[in-house]
Amino acid sequence: MSPDAEQAERAVVLISGGLDSSTCLAVARERGQICYALSFDYGQRHRVELEAAARIAVALGAAEHRVVQLDLAQFGGSALTDAAIAVPEQPGAGIPVTYVPARNTVFLAIALAYAEVRDARALYIGVNAVDYSGYPDCRPEFVAAFERLANLATRAGVEGRHLRIEAPLLALGKAQIIALGARLGVDFSLTISCYQPDTVGRACARCDACRLRAAGFSQAGLADPTRYRQNP
Amino acid sequence: MSPDAEQAERAVVLISGGLDSSTCLAVARERGQICYALSFDYGQRHRVELEAAARIAVALGAAEHRVVQLDLAQFGGSALTDAAIAVPEQPGAGIPVTYVPARNTVFLAIALAYAEVRDARALYIGVNAVDYSGYPDCRPEFVAAFERLANLATRAGVEGRHLRIEAPLLALGKAQIIALGARLGVDFSLTISCYQPDTVGRACARCDACRLRAAGFSQAGLADPTRYRQNP
Repeated sequence: MSPDAEQAERAVVLISGGLDSSTCLAVARERGQICYALSFDYGQRHRVELEAAARIAVALGAAEHRVVQLDLAQFGGSALTDAAIAVPEQPGAGIPVTYVPARNTVFLAIALAYAEVRDARALYIGVNAVDYSGYPDCRPEFVAAFERLANLATRAGVEGRHLRIEAPLLALGKAQIIALGARLGVDFSLTISCYQPDTVGRACARCDACRLRAAGFSQAGLADPTRYRQNP
Repeated sequence: MSPDAEQAERAVVLISGGLDSSTCLAVARERGQICYALSFDYGQRHRVELEAAARIAVALGAAEHRVVQLDLAQFGGSALTDAAIAVPEQPGAGIPVTYVPARNTVFLAIALAYAEVRDARALYIGVNAVDYSGYPDCRPEFVAAFERLANLATRAGVEGRHLRIEAPLLALGKAQIIALGARLGVDFSLTISCYQPDTVGRACARCDACRLRAAGFSQAGLADPTRYRQNP
């Protein structure tokens, strides 16, 4: 789909450098949106993902890519931002220690500010059924509640220009997301999923995120382009 | 009220250095909350308000005061963060140019992250009926929608520890807020309301915020301790 630029709708797309959000960006582009990509430098351990996000924004034709600095690590409380909490190598029960308190609420709130200034009508977020296994802010009811809030919170909403939160991966498992991204031309070799990659972006092969990713490529029947520190 | 520290509930209180949020902090303390004060360095023109916020947090007995750096100015779009947009000196129609896109959504989202880490059950925000004149994110329906979101978004909400958004000034006008703050011992000489104070915190006497504040002290029948650059 190649939309007329004057007719096309604008969208803010949250991208992390991982395969879900990259596929989400590819979906938005496929739908003819002019995409404003947004990433966060929030004190995450795995900061090479920001370099991946920048490459992906270019590869998938985003109109702009912004990185917002935000020190969520100062509050502590998550294995993804706090060096004192170990990243687990086995799935546990309940909400994982890799949950970052209120992360998606914070990311969508800042995306909403960006959307208001760019007059974007949609916010894309790559939450999905697999991440939902334990993260409260990856559930459909969270996404719906944020959309309702967005329309009460903003000039656009008050003036009748409806804002939508688009979560096109919400009902998909990892293998389905990989198959969708592959069909839309996502170069997964650019993406990083690992919670504890090394400084050049090679994955550990042991954390939850690595296990989910490897299983997804296997189930999708596609070659896994992930670079590992050692063979898994 | 002097609560037993082990019984007292924790609250995150957004403070800007202005008189509304200072009064809001005093209300939370009066209710026996252990207060975690939170401010934002978000690219606002009037940054001396952060020094005021720090003094107020100490004066009103906050357990902690955090300042989060967040560059909302990079998006532009508001007279409060964009030097290319003039601060108006007369009230206008509709949403004022001093509206910062999605500001209260962003501030409450980050307050929610802080609340999760500190196990706070309430978030206090000093929005009120006067600010509501034009700002969509100062309305009661916005506050209610955020509370609903907060309980869907967080570990606390999922695990049944209900979070409340407290907006104790919501139905009050400026004179009522000033009378309330005075009764609770707020030292208003520490607070800054002006949208364009000078570098030592003296007010312009001309912007909307200055006009509302001066009228509020007058209506409340209280002496106005505001320092002005010149006599209003």
